[in-house]
Amino acid sequence: MNYKVEKLKVNYKTLEDFKKFKEYGVQELSMSEDLEANIVENGSESPFYGVYFGDKLVARMSLYQVEGRFNRYFEPAQDYLELWKLEVLPDYQSKGYGSALVQFAKEFGLPIKTNSRVKSKDFWTKMDFSSIQYDMERDLGENPLVWFPHGVKEQSTEK
Amino acid sequence: MNYKVEKLKVNYKTLEDFKKFKEYGVQELSMSEDLEANIVENGSESPFYGVYFGDKLVARMSLYQVEGRFNRYFEPAQDYLELWKLEVLPDYQSKGYGSALVQFAKEFGLPIKTNSRVKSKDFWTKMDFSSIQYDMERDLGENPLVWFPHGVKEQSTEK
Repeated sequence: MNYKVEKLKVNYKTLEDFKKFKEYGVQELSMSEDLEANIVENGSESPFYGVYFGDKLVARMSLYQVEGRFNRYFEPAQDYLELWKLEVLPDYQSKGYGSALVQFAKEFGLPIKTNSRVKSKDFWTKMDFSSIQYDMERDLGENPLVWFPHGVKEQSTEK
Repeated sequence: MNYKVEKLKVNYKTLEDFKKFKEYGVQELSMSEDLEANIVENGSESPFYGVYFGDKLVARMSLYQVEGRFNRYFEPAQDYLELWKLEVLPDYQSKGYGSALVQFAKEFGLPIKTNSRVKSKDFWTKMDFSSIQYDMERDLGENPLVWFPHGVKEQSTEK
């Protein structure tokens, strides 16, 4: 379980690799269009991290550092990481790739928030993520799960 | 295609009906717990609308009116509706239930935003929803689709 997690560069190979993942959406399309229209350069930074098996991208996630002033989840108020599009290709699942990515995210030392599928709850529990009080106005149908580094707790919501 | 759309009340029957839908998550669990703990009354308002076939709930959606000051999608700035958990039970699909719900939402005359699955794009296009410029900081992996009433357009995002 000693995988090397890398920050992915925006380039044609990465974008081609992304097509193998189920969660292919507007974000990837937008990156692809920006690259083709020269709005971003080949090789510029992306919000994605991934793990390669040989030269094959087999697992990935997106991470974005949300500024403290938009923080509606954690106390004390501070920047936190939003984690999304965590996905491991079918033939590579249950081998620790997903855990390696989440572990990597934790090492920034910031609180993490993700929006989980109900089916993947067991995985997140194993990774020490927990549910927070559902707040409809904030969550609008999301199933937020969070991870707290030491000294951080849930922001209290007024009912 | 003349279905009666009703605002759903929070009660034990509704919450039991919800278990038949695939998108059962924290929102439903939280409503269920609030009811059991008497935090909300049996029969209180919910964000859900639905269509019954006889006494069976066969289609539903959630709608929430987001205040104008949180509006990052539409111009001029104004309240808009967030639509989520639109779902029709398998045996009742392709009979116009989903369209009836979306049509109902449009009749509030407010702009609507939803987060679509890539697979359901055709349905939303048929309902006159369109993609907007993907803005990673705002959208964080969502695939936002919107519907504009007359006189409303997309909010410009600074790149």
